[in-house]
Amino acid sequence: MAFTTRVLELIDERSPLCLGIDPASAESAAGAEQFAEALLDAALDSVAAVKPQMAYFERFGPAGLEVLARVCERCRKAGVPVIVDAKRGDIGSTMAGYAQAYFGPGAPIQADAVTATAYLGLKALAPLFDRMAEAGGGAFVVVCSSNPEGLPLQTAHLPDGRLVAEWLADEVAAENERLGSQSIGAVIGATCGAWARGPLERLHGAPVLAPGLGAQGGTFEQAARLFAGSEDRVLLPMSRALTSGGLDPGVLRERVRENAELARAFRDRGTRVPA
Amino acid sequence: MAFTTRVLELIDERSPLCLGIDPASAESAAGAEQFAEALLDAALDSVAAVKPQMAYFERFGPAGLEVLARVCERCRKAGVPVIVDAKRGDIGSTMAGYAQAYFGPGAPIQADAVTATAYLGLKALAPLFDRMAEAGGGAFVVVCSSNPEGLPLQTAHLPDGRLVAEWLADEVAAENERLGSQSIGAVIGATCGAWARGPLERLHGAPVLAPGLGAQGGTFEQAARLFAGSEDRVLLPMSRALTSGGLDPGVLRERVRENAELARAFRDRGTRVPA
Repeated sequence: MAFTTRVLELIDERSPLCLGIDPASAESAAGAEQFAEALLDAALDSVAAVKPQMAYFERFGPAGLEVLARVCERCRKAGVPVIVDAKRGDIGSTMAGYAQAYFGPGAPIQADAVTATAYLGLKALAPLFDRMAEAGGGAFVVVCSSNPEGLPLQTAHLPDGRLVAEWLADEVAAENERLGSQSIGAVIGATCGAWARGPLERLHGAPVLAPGLGAQGGTFEQAARLFAGSEDRVLLPMSRALTSGGLDPGVLRERVRENAELARAFRDRGTRVPA
Repeated sequence: MAFTTRVLELIDERSPLCLGIDPASAESAAGAEQFAEALLDAALDSVAAVKPQMAYFERFGPAGLEVLARVCERCRKAGVPVIVDAKRGDIGSTMAGYAQAYFGPGAPIQADAVTATAYLGLKALAPLFDRMAEAGGGAFVVVCSSNPEGLPLQTAHLPDGRLVAEWLADEVAAENERLGSQSIGAVIGATCGAWARGPLERLHGAPVLAPGLGAQGGTFEQAARLFAGSEDRVLLPMSRALTSGGLDPGVLRERVRENAELARAFRDRGTRVPA
């Protein structure tokens, strides 16, 4: 089943909660694996997707990539899509190289989707999208980020009046049309506020990955306000909010249960939005 | 010796030529290593820096990273700075994770510099820069790319009238001032033309990595026109232009010799610029 179809199905069946795996405190590849295993034990049957943060595996070099490959394998065997949060972004044949790392036969790390950035232009990522689509995979391109430092860039204006983020959302929609699917989604931070509505509406139904909840300071209310009307296609990744109470299985399971429920209330427009 | 100091010294002593290692046709990590070894045999004593393209190693997973680590080690032992062309770009603690992959004690891949992208804002990369600076390393942030697809974004306007690329160049200069060095440079495509002069001038003397020569269609004349007055701080990476005649040691050496000479003529303002 294609990535986006499966994710939408799991958002509906389970919850929009996406398990972020950010082993920032691990001191070795083995430590990162223990961390990931504890999280997967507690959450793999409750979430719509799993999102390991590449940087926290890459920093352990080859051993870290081996752990990441096993994390991906476990998710895929369980039928839960895994999104490698790698934010790759280059041009042409280079993107074809990255595509070979994550998609299709022989890929050393078998992912269902990756995140990407497009400072060099969205169409420069086409070789990634082509191999991804052939493998039934997906991608999320950063459009509106959850941190403030990118705002001057993302809200700069093109000569036709569009914001950079709006232009990029249009490019995503055009690429999806070219591919004949909704396999490319957008990263739109849950804390962005009203300015991100324009880019969101230009996606023409593509899925959204919305970081920023929990440890980054965002609330379900903020997400409800921004994504009103699009709730059924928004993934809500959480990581530190799930692990800040430690890795005790009971505590983890309870954190996952609570947040999966809040995410369902968001999906069902049951989140109270303060006026 | 700090990265930028060493690169400027080698540009002066040798040539602005930077050896790109792009094993795009290799079918295994071992093949990528053979390719890299052949290039290093032919060029390591003639260039100012070496730039392996991360994607072509990452696609072979853990084994690819092991090869890349050995390529970096060989360059560093020879005293030639190695720039891992990884175009990493994320926020905060995630960038600290990437920094640990490439800089400082215990980094599995010991680089002298990396390339980065800043769709999420330059200041979001600060944790990378901090660890990099502590290790005496460098970074090149993509400001004006050599491909056309990113032009609408890079030339969008901020409310104060600056282009995105100009804003980003100002941010690079400000980060260098914060660090008290010129350790952060910019990627400015050699084929960009006149619009890239503004961003270039805003760098206040930071080094430039200027891809686009050779196989990408750019000429030394284009580089001479764009970088007039800044030639002593511009690295000119070439890869396919060096290898398109095959990996025969004699042919490779001759290609390197020819292009190192053309790059020296560029540095010495000896490149004829058509009127």
